[in-house]
Amino acid sequence: MPELRKNPVTREWVIVAETRSQRPLETTIPHESSISKGPAFDPDCPFCPGNESQTPREVLAFRSTPGAGDTPGWNVRVTPNKYPALLVEGDLARRGLGMYDCMNGIGAHEVVIETPAHNLPFADLPTAHCADVFWACRERFVDLSRDRRFKYILFFRNEGRVAGVSLDHPHSQIIALPMVPMDVMAEIEGMSHYAEYRDRCPYCDMVDQERESADRVLFETASYLIFEPFASRFAFETWVVPKIHQPSFAELDYDAMPAVAEAVQGALRHIDRCLGSPPYNLAMHTMPINTSRPEDFHWHIQITPRLAATGGFELGTGVYINPISPEESARRLRESAAETR
Amino acid sequence: MPELRKNPVTREWVIVAETRSQRPLETTIPHESSISKGPAFDPDCPFCPGNESQTPREVLAFRSTPGAGDTPGWNVRVTPNKYPALLVEGDLARRGLGMYDCMNGIGAHEVVIETPAHNLPFADLPTAHCADVFWACRERFVDLSRDRRFKYILFFRNEGRVAGVSLDHPHSQIIALPMVPMDVMAEIEGMSHYAEYRDRCPYCDMVDQERESADRVLFETASYLIFEPFASRFAFETWVVPKIHQPSFAELDYDAMPAVAEAVQGALRHIDRCLGSPPYNLAMHTMPINTSRPEDFHWHIQITPRLAATGGFELGTGVYINPISPEESARRLRESAAETR
Repeated sequence: MPELRKNPVTREWVIVAETRSQRPLETTIPHESSISKGPAFDPDCPFCPGNESQTPREVLAFRSTPGAGDTPGWNVRVTPNKYPALLVEGDLARRGLGMYDCMNGIGAHEVVIETPAHNLPFADLPTAHCADVFWACRERFVDLSRDRRFKYILFFRNEGRVAGVSLDHPHSQIIALPMVPMDVMAEIEGMSHYAEYRDRCPYCDMVDQERESADRVLFETASYLIFEPFASRFAFETWVVPKIHQPSFAELDYDAMPAVAEAVQGALRHIDRCLGSPPYNLAMHTMPINTSRPEDFHWHIQITPRLAATGGFELGTGVYINPISPEESARRLRESAAETR
Repeated sequence: MPELRKNPVTREWVIVAETRSQRPLETTIPHESSISKGPAFDPDCPFCPGNESQTPREVLAFRSTPGAGDTPGWNVRVTPNKYPALLVEGDLARRGLGMYDCMNGIGAHEVVIETPAHNLPFADLPTAHCADVFWACRERFVDLSRDRRFKYILFFRNEGRVAGVSLDHPHSQIIALPMVPMDVMAEIEGMSHYAEYRDRCPYCDMVDQERESADRVLFETASYLIFEPFASRFAFETWVVPKIHQPSFAELDYDAMPAVAEAVQGALRHIDRCLGSPPYNLAMHTMPINTSRPEDFHWHIQITPRLAATGGFELGTGVYINPISPEESARRLRESAAETR
């Protein structure tokens, strides 16, 4: 029997309809593997070492030995996106156009080049190196937060063409926005609504309930619970949630980064093993910045494999159809992790 | 300069960043043509005439000559989806599971087989035939509305694998839901909010303003305005909006159907000619049913070509990045229509 499930935070309804997982295989759109993407160095790749001049000037780089900017020798390198969705220069110039409202597309759009190695998947980076990627992200958060025009910063990662990738070299992205997006506002309002009633954070409650029932949990570390959310929108959707209440990722210090890397890479390795390195999106949800609005948050990371295309139904309603229950996907993810151990 | 644009109804912000249309071509995911899908009859297709036994029993069919159900001779045929996202039988059984809420996946999920011809694109159906497709939809709306458990009905159409299609034979779908989806609620709330201030319907105002400025308009008919919305989420997003205030599609009578067909097929032909029959989603937005909540609506159809993949940014924020302004897409759509005339 299919089920409708409501996300207690955003109040979105999701249909869990396992009958749909028996559809003909052609319903899953073809996807390429993210593993073994050719050579470790590709002379034509703008993110490979030696090609630093092909990107805008770096805003941050970690180098094992000190050196000039925009030259090889870096481990992790952050540059503005060459094709930015938003620009840093200028002012917002809010204005009306008849019944419509608009403002300039002010913001930041940066690329985090995660490794010099062209073919090294993010999930397979050494933990310490992956921790540096998250530290670069944390550094950029702190720096971008100083710009009072920005209200929200998103860290995200796309893997595979179907999930929006245009360049194979392992990278993630950061976008700073001059407004708090509707979906984030809805999440915050959902959290307040929940807290008003119970004086508790829904993500804290979720961690408690998921640990207790365990049927949607993949694994846990000292600091993080990794599980399939009750109202998963996508097959094998996986969340990485801090076990203690932490409003913002930006509050973490350097020593906290290896634990983030361990949790996120662990989640991705479960997915890669079970599903053969599918395309996916990863998005960090964290507290808005520079707003006077009273807020609380519980930062976390959502990983959404992209196994099937979303269609007119999702677009027309915002309701997603998930062809597999999170309990079943958790079971399969745990099993393939156990097999390969 | 990229721009942020706010949808006056849903209050969603959209980034219009034309700089992104200069990205390398590989950013557009491959898509197959929707035209010339093989033979007019495919013996292996469950939607082709003669294979009626391969679908669930029809709930509606238009036959030029009277005949038994589930046999050939139909022009348009509606059957329950063989792999439904929701089931008609049963009750909702709303319940809590600790902090979570859920209910049974009660609803209807039907397939509208638009023509017996396996390879005839929807945009190329004779207008009178296409009008019958919309009439079948209208009939199903009225019938499904009698079921008091249902609160919202969506008519939608996917074209191309990337847009969620699994079977090539031309078809659209109807889903009846036991709740009003969040996105629809947000649209209704946005409309009330707008009306509270101005005592006018935002879609009516939009029709007026778009007709006046004309730079986003593709064409208009006696009853419909066809234009690119100010805050287009997708490149070449196209709306078909009734020029007079009409809350619900279900209120239209049989004589109104050719005008709907003319407007929608005209929009699709503009898109097909300009973009080479790209994958797209089409979704009808109309008034919820069986709810006591005071509502007003202005039904319309949204067509969203799927030229690029959506990624972690859209998923993480609900904010879409559109690589082309609606003014420019309207210009291109009008031009290719003029060229082929």
